[in-house]
Order: sequence, then C-alpha cells, then structure tokens
Amino acid sequence: MKKGTIFSGMRPTGKLHIGHLSVLENWVKLQDEYNCFFGIVDWHALTTAYEDTSEIKENIRLMLLDWLSVGLDPEKSTIIVQSHVKEHAELHLLFSMITPLSWLERVPTYKDQIQQLGKEGKDISTYGFLGYPLLQAADILIYRANAVPVGEDQLPHLELCREIARRFNHLYQTDILPEPQAILAKVSLLPGVDGRKMSKSYNNFIPLGAAVEEILEKVQMMVTDPARIRKTDPGNPEVCLVHTYQNIYNPAEIEEIRLSCRSGSIGCVACKKRLAGRLEEFLTPIRERRVYYENKPQLLKEILENGAEKARAEARKTLDLVRSVMKI
Amino acid sequence: MKKGTIFSGMRPTGKLHIGHLSVLENWVKLQDEYNCFFGIVDWHALTTAYEDTSEIKENIRLMLLDWLSVGLDPEKSTIIVQSHVKEHAELHLLFSMITPLSWLERVPTYKDQIQQLGKEGKDISTYGFLGYPLLQAADILIYRANAVPVGEDQLPHLELCREIARRFNHLYQTDILPEPQAILAKVSLLPGVDGRKMSKSYNNFIPLGAAVEEILEKVQMMVTDPARIRKTDPGNPEVCLVHTYQNIYNPAEIEEIRLSCRSGSIGCVACKKRLAGRLEEFLTPIRERRVYYENKPQLLKEILENGAEKARAEARKTLDLVRSVMKI
Ligand code: SF4
Ligand code: SF4
Repeated sequence: MKKGTIFSGMRPTGKLHIGHLSVLENWVKLQDEYNCFFGIVDWHALTTAYEDTSEIKENIRLMLLDWLSVGLDPEKSTIIVQSHVKEHAELHLLFSMITPLSWLERVPTYKDQIQQLGKEGKDISTYGFLGYPLLQAADILIYRANAVPVGEDQLPHLELCREIARRFNHLYQTDILPEPQAILAKVSLLPGVDGRKMSKSYNNFIPLGAAVEEILEKVQMMVTDPARIRKTDPGNPEVCLVHTYQNIYNPAEIEEIRLSCRSGSIGCVACKKRLAGRLEEFLTPIRERRVYYENKPQLLKEILENGAEKARAEARKTLDLVRSVMKI
Repeated sequence: MKKGTIFSGMRPTGKLHIGHLSVLENWVKLQDEYNCFFGIVDWHALTTAYEDTSEIKENIRLMLLDWLSVGLDPEKSTIIVQSHVKEHAELHLLFSMITPLSWLERVPTYKDQIQQLGKEGKDISTYGFLGYPLLQAADILIYRANAVPVGEDQLPHLELCREIARRFNHLYQTDILPEPQAILAKVSLLPGVDGRKMSKSYNNFIPLGAAVEEILEKVQMMVTDPARIRKTDPGNPEVCLVHTYQNIYNPAEIEEIRLSCRSGSIGCVACKKRLAGRLEEFLTPIRERRVYYENKPQLLKEILENGAEKARAEARKTLDLVRSVMKI
C-alpha cells in the first residue's frame, strides 16, 4: 500500500551531474513508497530559453537517460515530458482565473530572478515567467499529488500551490484538491571541482555519464592543500577539495586518508587516484545503464509514450472532477 | 474562393438581444466570404464569473440558440465552445512565455475594468484577467485567422494580437502566424427601452427570442415625447425613443410617421403598436428558428461536437507548425 502520490519535475537544461545525485537518489527511494510522477518540464524551460530553444529536445533526451541511469524505473514510476500531457496547460489556465496577481508578484524568487537573469542579458519579464509557480501548481495538482519532494529554496512555490488548492476548494465548496506536503530533501552542497558552485557555464562538474578519462581529468583539476609542496609534507585535509569528495564517496577509507595526509605518508597524486577509483566504481553502473538505454531510441520513445498515456488518464480524471465542481 | 479565415467570439453571459443584432448580422454575412470560426468563449467568462459559475453552462446553450436563430449556419461556419478545443489553452501557454508582462499591463481597458468591476464588488485582479487579451490572441491565431470582425473598442486587443504574432514570427524566424486585420463593424448604439444603455441588470432590452407579449410590453415601456399630453398634440420625434427604434426597424414608414407625429395625426399608442408590429415581423423568423433548435438538444450537441472536431483539426495543424518552428 503506497503512502500517496508524488509529483516532481526538472527543467531540461542539460546533462545532470553528481551534484544532482542526492535529489535523484531520493526520488529512486520514493518510487517504492509513493505513486510517483516525474516530469521533464519543458514548458518551464521556455520561461528562460524562449529566445533560443535549439537545445530543448536534445536536453529532454539527455535528462531521460540520466534519470533512467540512476535508477528511475518506468515500471514503478510514471515518467513524462510535460508538454506531452496537455492537461497541464488546461489546469494552468483554469487556475489562472482564480489566482490573484498579487500572490504571484510576491513570490520571493520572482523579482530576484528577473534581476539575476537580466544581468546575464536575458529578458524574462514575461507573462509566463510571472506564472511559473502557477504552472508548477498545475503540474502537481493535475495528479492530485499530496506530497512533493523539494529543497528548502522551493518551499515558497509549494506554499503557493497549497494556497491555490485551498482557494479552489473554498470557491467551489469541494475537497478534490489536496494540499501537498513537502518531503524535504537534503540538497547536496558539493562544490564544483574548481571550488566554485557547480554550474553548466563553468564546466566544473562531473556528469553522471562521465567516462573514466573524464573522471580522472576532473579529479586532477581539484585544488588540494596549497601549503603542501612535497608529497612528504604533512597536509591539512580540511582545506582540500579532494577530501570533501572522499568524505562523500569514500567513507570507508576517509579516516585512514585523513591520518595519512596529516602525517605526510600519502601524496596528493595517490590520494586523487584513490578518489577517482571510488568515483569510477560509483558511476560505472550508472554509466552502464546509460549506455544500455542510449542505444535504444525506440525504447526511450516507448517509455515516454507509456508515461504520457498513464499520466493523461490520471490527469483527465482530475480535470473531469475540476470541471464538474466548477460547473463548466 | 474565400477571402481568408475569421475568428470571432462572445462570452456566454446571458441571452442576446436586439442590441447584438448588428454584430451578428455582420457575422452571418461574413459566412459566405470567409472561412469562419465562431467561438462561445467560456474560459473568458471565468475571468469575471469564477466566483459564481452556475450559469455558464446554460448561457452556452442560450448563446448557441441565439446564434443559430439569427442565421449562423453550422454548414458554412465552424461553431465551437472554446473549452472544447484544448489547443487554445496550449497556444495561450506558449504565447505566455514570449509575451512581455508590460504589453498586457498597458492594454487600455485593463485597469479601467478592474476598477469598474471592483465597484460592483467583483475582484478580478487575477493572473487570468491580466492574460485576457493573450487568450484572445490564442483564440484567433490558433486558426491562423487573418481577419477579425471587431468593434472600435476592441482594437487595442487586436493590436496586441498582431504584436504577439509579429514577435513570434520574429523570434522563430518564420511567417506561419498572420497578423490579423480588423474588419470594423458598425456597432449599434441602440439604447435600452428605458433610454439607458442596454444591460442585463436593467432588463431594458428586447431579447432575440422575445415572444409577441414581451415585444409589446417592452415597446410600451419606451419613453415618448414627454411634452405630448393628448394624442392630437404635435409631437417631436427627435426626443422620442419609439422614433429611434422606428428609424431602424421601420425605415419604409419613417417619413410618414415623422410627419404624422409632428402634425399630431398619429397617437403614441398607435405609433407604438406599429413599431411592435415591425419588431414582431422582424423577430418572428428568428424566434421560429430558435424554437426549431430549442427542441432538438441532440442536434445542438452534434453541432458543437462537429464544430469542435473541425476546429481541433485546424488547431492541431497550427500547433504542429508552432512546435516545429519553436523546436519543441
Ligand atoms: S593527501 Fe589527499 S586530502 Fe591530503 S591534501 Fe592531498 S589530496 Fe587533499
Ligand atoms: S407619435 Fe410616435 S414618434 Fe411621435 S412621440 Fe409618439 S411614439 Fe414618438
């Protein structure tokens, strides 16, 4: 017996990397506990990418591969591309009629992001960008999801979704829409290999599908204790990025590495080699699943078609209820 | 060979009346010249009626009856209910991503109407109300209509529609969306039978389906020259509402009526009787067609189903093109 229904989505913005793993591992776990809908939300991608949409299709394919490679299972979960399930657009339109403009204007991220992206030369002060959290609410409520795995930063959007559900239920004297609860997920704060925030534009991340050479290359870019000149100098792991990664991906050996570093009995080259080995071990099954799916475009197509079909059936049930209580 | 494609719509807000005839007669004429799509735009009705939707369904039925009774012909035109053609919602969502918020905020009617309806106790400052002209643009462009019959007051909305088409074509280096031209229709300024603006809330109009008794009753309510006490007093038709109506519905006799009024040789009761007779003559075929359709709910259903099917086929072609140039 499952605990309820979940919707969660990601915008198809490019290859996923190990910084995304904590979220994805959480999704993989939730598959057994909840009736899960996972959406590649391509309409949302348009809010920032409407001026150059050339990569959206390929990014959808890459994201699906990444999801499958970490263990999202189309037998357990419903995996969709948002734009394949038109019902999201209809519910979004209906919600737009009952949602005060002021609710959207006061979403904390709204003005910040317009400014932020304005600096990067992107003009996103569109009607659709203002409606972003409303489309998210439709994404969630079209499946009457009662839980949503989110990071702390997305809580205001979820709160808006809950308010819309509440307002809808109140206006139409019903209880068909749940107020979804947050499943707060620990978000990994793993920095990129150059010590900065992981970001597509810095190319400082290890992609989930990285080959052995790329893993090695990226680990070699990591900054170690800068005070350590010779490999026999004692090191300080606390200021070393390799240590941060070892801490996560090599917990069994972390104590020994710390001691060897501090005593100068392990060199940074050897230490990095060990990290690369662990990462390789960790990413190999992911990469292998990726390769498996990569060569089966027909299978990928079927996964999305089946997902869309299952999703539409559920979404239509919701819309039938919605239209019925709205008397339209 | 038809001149092009037209879309025009009306919100299902209640029974139509003779004040709507000039618009509808224009539509009837356009049916032979253009490939016409006429929409009962129920989603638009939600912008002002979301708090009380109880009448929308019945109003759709009444509007369809009114349209058929004045001569809109489902064999010639495509008659739809907007919400039956989900493609409108999808195009609206896509347009929302490329439409600057400021374009919508500066539509002249926007702030006026919020204030106006605010006074009537209706809160319409919703996201959907701001997006009203955007949904209209989607209504029109989903059929790639190149012409729209509009009244002068709707020109700003049409101009926005043209701007959106232009922006879309520019962003995606295409010419698939036409910039629809206005077909300016004379809007009747016929006052209500009490001399005020015709309005549902004043009940001062003659419905298109009015029975003989109602026509008579409404004509009797009309204010005549107040200086005329006895029927032999000379009258001044210029200040008489009956005369305004005679001018439109009884052009053959208008000269004679003016003379008889001024010379005091016709009484107001007789004059009103003649107007009622003309109106009856005029409205009888409309009422008869209405009765014909009223008793055929199955036929009405089929008309809307066929309309939706034809409209969807056309709308899907447009969306295929739209998605293809947007590369999504
Ligand atoms: S030995 Fe390892 S932990 Fe110590 S500084 Fe070098 S890379 Fe960092
Ligand atoms: S006779 Fe006719 S036109 Fe003259 S005032 Fe009476 S109703 Fe009006």
